[in-house]
Amino acid sequence: MSSTQSDRTEVRRLPDRGHYDRPTIDAILDEGFLCHLATVENGAPVVIPTLYARDGDHVLFHGSAAARSLRSARNQDVCLTVTLVDGFVLARSGMHHSMNYRSVVVMGRPELVEGDEKVRALDHIVERLVPGRVEQLAPRPMTDKEIRATTVLRLPLAEASAKVRQGGPVDDDEDYALPIWAGVLPVSIDYGTPITDPAMTMEMDVPANIADYRRPTA
Amino acid sequence: MSSTQSDRTEVRRLPDRGHYDRPTIDAILDEGFLCHLATVENGAPVVIPTLYARDGDHVLFHGSAAARSLRSARNQDVCLTVTLVDGFVLARSGMHHSMNYRSVVVMGRPELVEGDEKVRALDHIVERLVPGRVEQLAPRPMTDKEIRATTVLRLPLAEASAKVRQGGPVDDDEDYALPIWAGVLPVSIDYGTPITDPAMTMEMDVPANIADYRRPTA
Repeated sequence: MSSTQSDRTEVRRLPDRGHYDRPTIDAILDEGFLCHLATVENGAPVVIPTLYARDGDHVLFHGSAAARSLRSARNQDVCLTVTLVDGFVLARSGMHHSMNYRSVVVMGRPELVEGDEKVRALDHIVERLVPGRVEQLAPRPMTDKEIRATTVLRLPLAEASAKVRQGGPVDDDEDYALPIWAGVLPVSIDYGTPITDPAMTMEMDVPANIADYRRPTA
Repeated sequence: MSSTQSDRTEVRRLPDRGHYDRPTIDAILDEGFLCHLATVENGAPVVIPTLYARDGDHVLFHGSAAARSLRSARNQDVCLTVTLVDGFVLARSGMHHSMNYRSVVVMGRPELVEGDEKVRALDHIVERLVPGRVEQLAPRPMTDKEIRATTVLRLPLAEASAKVRQGGPVDDDEDYALPIWAGVLPVSIDYGTPITDPAMTMEMDVPANIADYRRPTA
């Protein structure tokens, strides 16, 4: 079954915007790199930003083995949300102002990734953030101590939904004649000119995968 | 007291990155526009993206009065997180790869905003997203029906913390001599060329506040 729909990930508000197919979900997850991860601590929700990478049917994330959020994420259901903002929708009424965006919500219980899988997962997270980076790091392999100091978790994509809003403003019929500019202001992420670490001890060109960085798009 | 520190918003992991002063917190909240809002539903966390606007000592957010997330947010503690990504930190080891970012976490119980305050709050949310927009919408005032259909909540900034990571990679001493390019890839938000709604019934220039859009920076 390719659907990821469940009762709790169902998009109830504006259900037209809901998507449950893996191609839609995967494309959003692969274009993004930052998620907001929510856990419950002492009865109250806590949401923190963290890097992630999709790996097949899972979303990987990691952090210091000492981090409170990762410790608590291992023993409870979490919610992991990724949001890509595509534009501000400026309508003719305040009410119809909106945002163009693509978001994914994944719910479930994370599993600990260990052993050889853990090393592969850490490389995968780096490689998904900057394709080609793992090869560039070959002169400096991960150490056992570093691997032990890091916790890697993976959340299955079994319960997930995407929500997408695209296109121009949708106004009330009688408002189209009003003298108000309406349209969309596109919003995207810009990757700037790389800043070489002044502590570099040798002359090296900025590698092309960093100088010409871009995220995968569907 | 200007500090917003509390036990549960204290930055425990890498405490040097924690800030509890309102100028730091306010600057991040004012530059951002999208938050991730977490509630607890049936014992599990749920985190959704939504627009917000700081209004003095509160963060305002809103949505359809019919939305599940807003209904549940009124009667429980929530966590509202804003993250601005400033760069990818590409170090000489996978371990020291990092992200430059500024984030704010606010916890607390949202209060319902009603009456005249509600109308003012809705205008404030539009105006913080696009300064000057409320005046442009003057020919089309909000209707009572629209106001009733919208729920506005405000979360006090009493319990909040900021976390900031800036600067270049910090590598292990022995790694600086390795032949690995290291540095920072700057990341920022780009606001593109406005797309006028083809359904516009009259010729109008794109207003300057939209054509030259930028977020306030500290």
